[in-house]
Amino acid sequence: MHRRKICVVITARPSYARIRTAMEAIREHPKLELQVITAASAILERFGFPDRVIEAEGFSIDYKLHTMLEGGNLVTAAKSTGLGIIELTSAFQALAPDAVVTIADRFETLSTAVAAAYMNIPLVHIQGGEITGNIDNKVRHAITKLADLHLVASEPARRRVIAMGEEPATVHVTGCPSIDLAARILRDPEIKVDLFAAYKGVGPTFDWHQPYLVVLQHPVTTEPEAAGFQAEETLHAVHQSGIPTFWFWPNIDAGSDATSHAIRAFRERYRPQNIHFFKNLPPDDFLRLVYHSLAIVGNSSVGIRECAFLGVPAVNIGKRQQNRDRAPNVIDIDHDRRQILAAIETVKRQPRPQPSHLYGDGRAGERIADLLATEPLHYEK
Amino acid sequence: MHRRKICVVITARPSYARIRTAMEAIREHPKLELQVITAASAILERFGFPDRVIEAEGFSIDYKLHTMLEGGNLVTAAKSTGLGIIELTSAFQALAPDAVVTIADRFETLSTAVAAAYMNIPLVHIQGGEITGNIDNKVRHAITKLADLHLVASEPARRRVIAMGEEPATVHVTGCPSIDLAARILRDPEIKVDLFAAYKGVGPTFDWHQPYLVVLQHPVTTEPEAAGFQAEETLHAVHQSGIPTFWFWPNIDAGSDATSHAIRAFRERYRPQNIHFFKNLPPDDFLRLVYHSLAIVGNSSVGIRECAFLGVPAVNIGKRQQNRDRAPNVIDIDHDRRQILAAIETVKRQPRPQPSHLYGDGRAGERIADLLATEPLHYEK
Amino acid sequence: MHRRKICVVITARPSYARIRTAMEAIREHPKLELQVITAASAILERFGFPDRVIEAEGFSIDYKLHTMLEGGNLVTAAKSTGLGIIELTSAFQALAPDAVVTIADRFETLSTAVAAAYMNIPLVHIQGGEITGNIDNKVRHAITKLADLHLVASEPARRRVIAMGEEPATVHVTGCPSIDLAARILRDPEIKVDLFAAYKGVGPTFDWHQPYLVVLQHPVTTEPEAAGFQAEETLHAVHQSGIPTFWFWPNIDAGSDATSHAIRAFRERYRPQNIHFFKNLPPDDFLRLVYHSLAIVGNSSVGIRECAFLGVPAVNIGKRQQNRDRAPNVIDIDHDRRQILAAIETVKRQPRPQPSHLYGDGRAGERIADLLATEPLHYEK
Amino acid sequence: MHRRKICVVITARPSYARIRTAMEAIREHPKLELQVITAASAILERFGFPDRVIEAEGFSIDYKLHTMLEGGNLVTAAKSTGLGIIELTSAFQALAPDAVVTIADRFETLSTAVAAAYMNIPLVHIQGGEITGNIDNKVRHAITKLADLHLVASEPARRRVIAMGEEPATVHVTGCPSIDLAARILRDPEIKVDLFAAYKGVGPTFDWHQPYLVVLQHPVTTEPEAAGFQAEETLHAVHQSGIPTFWFWPNIDAGSDATSHAIRAFRERYRPQNIHFFKNLPPDDFLRLVYHSLAIVGNSSVGIRECAFLGVPAVNIGKRQQNRDRAPNVIDIDHDRRQILAAIETVKRQPRPQPSHLYGDGRAGERIADLLATEPLHYEK
Repeated sequence: MHRRKICVVITARPSYARIRTAMEAIREHPKLELQVITAASAILERFGFPDRVIEAEGFSIDYKLHTMLEGGNLVTAAKSTGLGIIELTSAFQALAPDAVVTIADRFETLSTAVAAAYMNIPLVHIQGGEITGNIDNKVRHAITKLADLHLVASEPARRRVIAMGEEPATVHVTGCPSIDLAARILRDPEIKVDLFAAYKGVGPTFDWHQPYLVVLQHPVTTEPEAAGFQAEETLHAVHQSGIPTFWFWPNIDAGSDATSHAIRAFRERYRPQNIHFFKNLPPDDFLRLVYHSLAIVGNSSVGIRECAFLGVPAVNIGKRQQNRDRAPNVIDIDHDRRQILAAIETVKRQPRPQPSHLYGDGRAGERIADLLATEPLHYEK
Repeated sequence: MHRRKICVVITARPSYARIRTAMEAIREHPKLELQVITAASAILERFGFPDRVIEAEGFSIDYKLHTMLEGGNLVTAAKSTGLGIIELTSAFQALAPDAVVTIADRFETLSTAVAAAYMNIPLVHIQGGEITGNIDNKVRHAITKLADLHLVASEPARRRVIAMGEEPATVHVTGCPSIDLAARILRDPEIKVDLFAAYKGVGPTFDWHQPYLVVLQHPVTTEPEAAGFQAEETLHAVHQSGIPTFWFWPNIDAGSDATSHAIRAFRERYRPQNIHFFKNLPPDDFLRLVYHSLAIVGNSSVGIRECAFLGVPAVNIGKRQQNRDRAPNVIDIDHDRRQILAAIETVKRQPRPQPSHLYGDGRAGERIADLLATEPLHYEK
Repeated sequence: MHRRKICVVITARPSYARIRTAMEAIREHPKLELQVITAASAILERFGFPDRVIEAEGFSIDYKLHTMLEGGNLVTAAKSTGLGIIELTSAFQALAPDAVVTIADRFETLSTAVAAAYMNIPLVHIQGGEITGNIDNKVRHAITKLADLHLVASEPARRRVIAMGEEPATVHVTGCPSIDLAARILRDPEIKVDLFAAYKGVGPTFDWHQPYLVVLQHPVTTEPEAAGFQAEETLHAVHQSGIPTFWFWPNIDAGSDATSHAIRAFRERYRPQNIHFFKNLPPDDFLRLVYHSLAIVGNSSVGIRECAFLGVPAVNIGKRQQNRDRAPNVIDIDHDRRQILAAIETVKRQPRPQPSHLYGDGRAGERIADLLATEPLHYEK
Repeated sequence: MHRRKICVVITARPSYARIRTAMEAIREHPKLELQVITAASAILERFGFPDRVIEAEGFSIDYKLHTMLEGGNLVTAAKSTGLGIIELTSAFQALAPDAVVTIADRFETLSTAVAAAYMNIPLVHIQGGEITGNIDNKVRHAITKLADLHLVASEPARRRVIAMGEEPATVHVTGCPSIDLAARILRDPEIKVDLFAAYKGVGPTFDWHQPYLVVLQHPVTTEPEAAGFQAEETLHAVHQSGIPTFWFWPNIDAGSDATSHAIRAFRERYRPQNIHFFKNLPPDDFLRLVYHSLAIVGNSSVGIRECAFLGVPAVNIGKRQQNRDRAPNVIDIDHDRRQILAAIETVKRQPRPQPSHLYGDGRAGERIADLLATEPLHYEK
């Protein structure tokens, strides 16, 4: 029996978290064969070599493709996407998958979508139909129009994909696989390693059994020139709060150089004694760290999605997550150090929010694998 | 006063016909400055050096970018698109336009859309919202989701673009500029040159004041392996009809090599005495030739669009124009030599169809220029 | 025991003829493992799908990489080389060869050399140290300076490579593998198929047991604008000679479009009854055809090299083979139809020239495999 | 009168120092017109935006081309070179220079050479014929074989270029333009700004009128895995010496990530109070800083070349400058912290070495401009 070859393309650290349980389910499914390609920032040291994390968790990677131009600006985002198409085309030619899976909405994921669509390989899109506040919207919806099978996280997402003209029979609500990881964390919530010994990073160490914050703040691609300022506001607020904080390095993106620069300059100048900087953590320990935290601060979708399920407060700054569907755990504020500090003080005082199943119930991975094994795979609409 | 710099990217011969009157109106508009980039098949000898036609008609071209890989298959279509993004990004960086205009739905036009969208340059899409029968649909709608301003050809197209979620205020019906050219042809319909002397080509010559056919048949990208067979069916039907015929070489596309091969083999074997082959003609004389013809045969959109306005019968073969809005001039048939021959016999017998304004009234170019001069140009949705 | 992985990169039809016996010897060598990559024009229909010929002769191809831009001019030659570097780098990363073999001097072979040298993979250059009359010189010598092991065809070539500063211990005279094929042909000289039925092509058929000519004429890259004229001169001379002729389509190169165009126009106008045009032949039958011919006409290195060994007259036109070491079989003339016709008349009258071992004795392939198995492989000079 | 258009391509910060006075002389020459392209690391923030330094010194830049892939490894070096060829080809097509100037031997300079050579644009190579200890050798000599005019720094270099087979009439000793800058510094040696205020950087500040060291240490591309260790040895030696030190960030190169990482980790751990880290300085102030230093430490060619002319001791570590012609100012040692410390102690005790004209007399720029204005420019060898 021919097992369907399913090629998952991972181009960034956070995308792995959003597909990992589906990859496990594909690998173990009797009718499926898993292929894995890593590219773009998923193989770079600056992001903690996510490819090595993937391999350490037992996946074998078929191709590691360097496609990311250095520069962290709009020009390099566009060119990296073009180079990604070229490289992925050759990789798909060699792997001859029955379907290609692309995840969410980062700029370089459009490379995956274009290469597969143009080669008449059925394209599966995970996490279409959502709404955010920048170029990601354009990218996500463009991928929807190139995709043949839509495995979405939520009912509102399903309605939006169909409203864009996609055939309802090709749109399925699976929940988001990142919630599966969060569900596992609930069953095994203890951090078993010494975080500082295991994951290094720079900055002071402290006792993480005391209340602490987690910060994850990405530059907003439509406001690259503001990235430095935005990072500074959060740095000042977190510094001033005095609460021990784990700060995670930003994604590669237009503006990320400015963010990195602002962080370095702040550290040089203020030598903040309550902030430890990590490049990356394995997804499980990252989620455990978030789960036990006082709050997640920044503009990551983790605050909106995983933290909804986990019932962790999210101090959500600025417009990056604008328009996303929200559970009650989210506090929205501007890039303003006083607002940020006030929000941190609020979550300290209030009870933890109720968990929500808005983005999934913890079984997305197996649902995705089952659909990939049974749905018709075609490339004509 | 700052004149808005409008950068028009032309990547194929037929796209020029669909934008030419808008380019003239932009060039002459006091508030606009025209920039022109040619790329992909628009600078190749195999298509009659369309760039030289553009220059001969008085436009100066800022960049001529080689982006097309040789091979005419799905792999080269994808890679050419990737290379196009890289090259166009550098060109946009140098030209710094206030808006970029992309036309219709050919695979490589997605390069223009991605480069502009990722660089935060407002993207204007001409001819969104239409429906055809293959990968063009995916490409066209993906461009719609990347575009900021939609200048569509018809009212049904406007409704479709809005249904896909675009802001109604950004969608305008202008008609299609190709109809403007058709309107001019009605005011000056005579061919004033000796076609064979002026435009060469290969094959026998004949008196074009007698009834003749025009054939324009492109390979269908979802059926590249069928391209050779499809070309043969039409060749046999036209040959058998005995009617003098002008046959135009196909666009570069997955399958075009097979089409070219089939044509060469047919010529070698049958030495058809009623078919003359052209690579390309200036758009005006091409339309005059179509206007005076008994019918256009094949699967070009010219049969659906310009011929609707001109009232010329279109023998439309196969699925390439499937689902497009149709005026009464169209006869739809399969890739079958007997059906094709029968349709040719039918149009010989029947009266010319009534002209229709379905795709425009002849004033699209000036409307487009006016909108480009006055509409807000932004890149955030 | 680790067998050394030897990766042979083939980017054009004639390169395969120059490496085929070495590939056989590598494949059969107990200490070696053969890897094969085809790219550039070696996978294009226009050149008769050389990759399929390679597979038909029993080699399996690891990668078929589309890297050739369409256009046939200087710009596309440069860009194709850049794209080749990008694609070959990813392929080398996946194959992890112990050494990479590059052949001769075509523009796109520099891609192979740069990718391997920059990745610290030992680079083996076949046919360095020769002298010709155009850009090939620059390319060949630049590859010599990037290469770590030099397997040259002749003693004069060895001296030249060493004179350029290469370590004598890294330079070995093996003879040229193309001569091995010629040596086999001497042992089995009969053409056993019906050429026209087996290899198609276009133009009249004739009895090839009568005296005939073989023409192989490439555009000269430093004179691309002259390519059309040069093709015409040879066409006229061959036509006028009235001798049955097999004419082979040119390589992809700056100017090849002009050559192709000239051939098509000539056929259209003169309908030459003594010229049959082939795209490609398997190397064996090609050499048999040359061996039995009255003479080879044009500017291919086959006339200088294989024909030296076979003792076939070569009417060598123009500067392309300028400065190459010559055996007595060569008659040098200009791109002038009268000189070409006169040279054809001369070879008709004269006895066949004596065979020469200037370019090898027929055992190059096994020597190359032995050296690849035993020589130290390093990438530092 | 047609002024010859001379296109200078700058791909890295140190290359600018090696061409700046020639650029000035070209700009002011009545028979020449200067074109400037920056690419690769010459436009990246990580290297202090060298393009902005170039513009601040009065040059206008025609193109700023992003061509550098992120990763700092052998794969990205190769791919960046391929992408550079593609981008430079389009830029040369637009600028249509009469000659292209490429500098020295960094990996990405081969892009310039290939693009120009393949486009039949006369290629001028500055600083051919030298000898160093790694991939740079291969690159430099390969460029020599692609170049048409060789403007070399020294008499030994001239002899080597001719020995490689280049026509003696095309090889001219001009001296190195970087020495011109050093000559100017001798006429105006005072640093007039507050270094720390003007050029920021990180780390402690100190009084630079006291004896200090300058460190510039690049990873060696053939030993990328050793880069971290090599950086550490120098860091320890310099730290232990206690002498105030200006340390400059390394070039982008295979291994540079490891170097950067080692520096960050060292700073984090030891918080060295005698080392200030700069990303970049304008060439003049950089040379003034070197001129007044106790010694330059590391493996930069500045120690071998400019410091020969200036009479500044060079503690030259490892094999990167191996085989270069040396004046008496150089002390050669290994990557060993004790040897490095001992060499630093030695230069503290000894008198300053005598200046040498081995690499030029301070008039290279004007000689280069004169030769570019008067030598025949051709692209055939």
